[in-house]
Amino acid sequence: MPRYRLTIEYDGGPFVGFQRQSNGPSVQEALETAIAKFCGETVTVTGAGRTDAGVHAEGQVVHFDLAAGKSANEVRNALNHHLKPDPVAVLDAAVAAPEFHARFDAVGRAYRFRIVNRRPPLTFDRGLAWQVPVPLDADAMHAAAQRLVGRHDFTTFRSVHCQAQSALKTLDRLDVMRHGDEITVIAEARSFLHHQVRSMVGTLKLVGEGKWTADHVTEALEARDRQRLGLNAPPDGLYLTRVLYPAK
Amino acid sequence: MPRYRLTIEYDGGPFVGFQRQSNGPSVQEALETAIAKFCGETVTVTGAGRTDAGVHAEGQVVHFDLAAGKSANEVRNALNHHLKPDPVAVLDAAVAAPEFHARFDAVGRAYRFRIVNRRPPLTFDRGLAWQVPVPLDADAMHAAAQRLVGRHDFTTFRSVHCQAQSALKTLDRLDVMRHGDEITVIAEARSFLHHQVRSMVGTLKLVGEGKWTADHVTEALEARDRQRLGLNAPPDGLYLTRVLYPAK
Repeated sequence: MPRYRLTIEYDGGPFVGFQRQSNGPSVQEALETAIAKFCGETVTVTGAGRTDAGVHAEGQVVHFDLAAGKSANEVRNALNHHLKPDPVAVLDAAVAAPEFHARFDAVGRAYRFRIVNRRPPLTFDRGLAWQVPVPLDADAMHAAAQRLVGRHDFTTFRSVHCQAQSALKTLDRLDVMRHGDEITVIAEARSFLHHQVRSMVGTLKLVGEGKWTADHVTEALEARDRQRLGLNAPPDGLYLTRVLYPAK
Repeated sequence: MPRYRLTIEYDGGPFVGFQRQSNGPSVQEALETAIAKFCGETVTVTGAGRTDAGVHAEGQVVHFDLAAGKSANEVRNALNHHLKPDPVAVLDAAVAAPEFHARFDAVGRAYRFRIVNRRPPLTFDRGLAWQVPVPLDADAMHAAAQRLVGRHDFTTFRSVHCQAQSALKTLDRLDVMRHGDEITVIAEARSFLHHQVRSMVGTLKLVGEGKWTADHVTEALEARDRQRLGLNAPPDGLYLTRVLYPAK
């Protein structure tokens, strides 16, 4: 029974999140339904990251097993056909080792967060970025972001629904850069707490508009208290861009 | 009675085109309705370019007159408020000279056309780009595009519905460049015939996939015959990016 590994892209807008839930359509359900239509098999699809409602992916990785002997190309093309009209696309498919696990084997995750810093409302990017009308100082945001890089207890930046055993995480990268109206935040770590990227971006936004200093960010981090969180950014701007696995 | 000049952005997807028509919602109607909600005045909005159904704009220019003495900033902010939920945004507003005419004063127009050259279906860019699954040679497309630059009779690349008196136009620029999966075509001219950019892009796509050579493009141009057109690209990928006016 071969195991397949897919790299997928999706617009999180119409979904309750990656994971199957009773309250609405999920990316997992869309994939499982497409697989059933393709080959009649009922499988469970496991993703590397459980993206929230409205959060997007450019490089989510999933795995599942199929009894039917299908080639990876067949799987990719058939799923792209049967996923329509859902905004989910299979970018790559491969036959994986039978023990490959998309979530437990992952050793790194990269997210990007898109802020469009302008007064006019969004047109093309509606639901795909966070529109912030007040001018933001991206350099100040980047400098403050460096206070969060490294190994810390990220309790302040953790959702109350977070199920991780420990809030101790190592943040490898948190870069903020501006290109015209667009501010991009890149976050990389082995793993993240629930809402961690959105919490960090929301807090950096306060720095960008001059309400907080970098020292406020350090104080919030050291407080280890969710009540000290500045602001949670909306899901619209968040993209799971890449999942890393050990080189074989 | 001051005249206002706006630079606007819109997703053409939900519209029958820029111009007011009886068969569905137009950008012009959206603007005129927002103006009426804002200040109660019934005005006619004139645009620099009559973009077709599904064609987008990043820098369309329009003008209209208002009796009420409103500042340009007031106009911009109020229209952005009243345009919701339509995907139309006012990027800039200014009080113009009373004789300013968005269409007749324009001395240059720039369009870009977005091709996403990949097999997987589009997710984020649905309706916002032309997805071409077969591999395209962008360098070959760029070389062939140069056959169209200059002063020519563009009858081959003209819609049967085109109302221009003459098909003789000067194409100042037609560049094709690739960045990863994305191929961008930039077209600049004083003015374009109806469907000219989409006709040229469709023809260049045939070159990109190796079905046509640059010589075929020259032959089609010289034939001055719509029947010799290779292919019309869909509206999804087309953006009116900029309208130029004489420096004062």
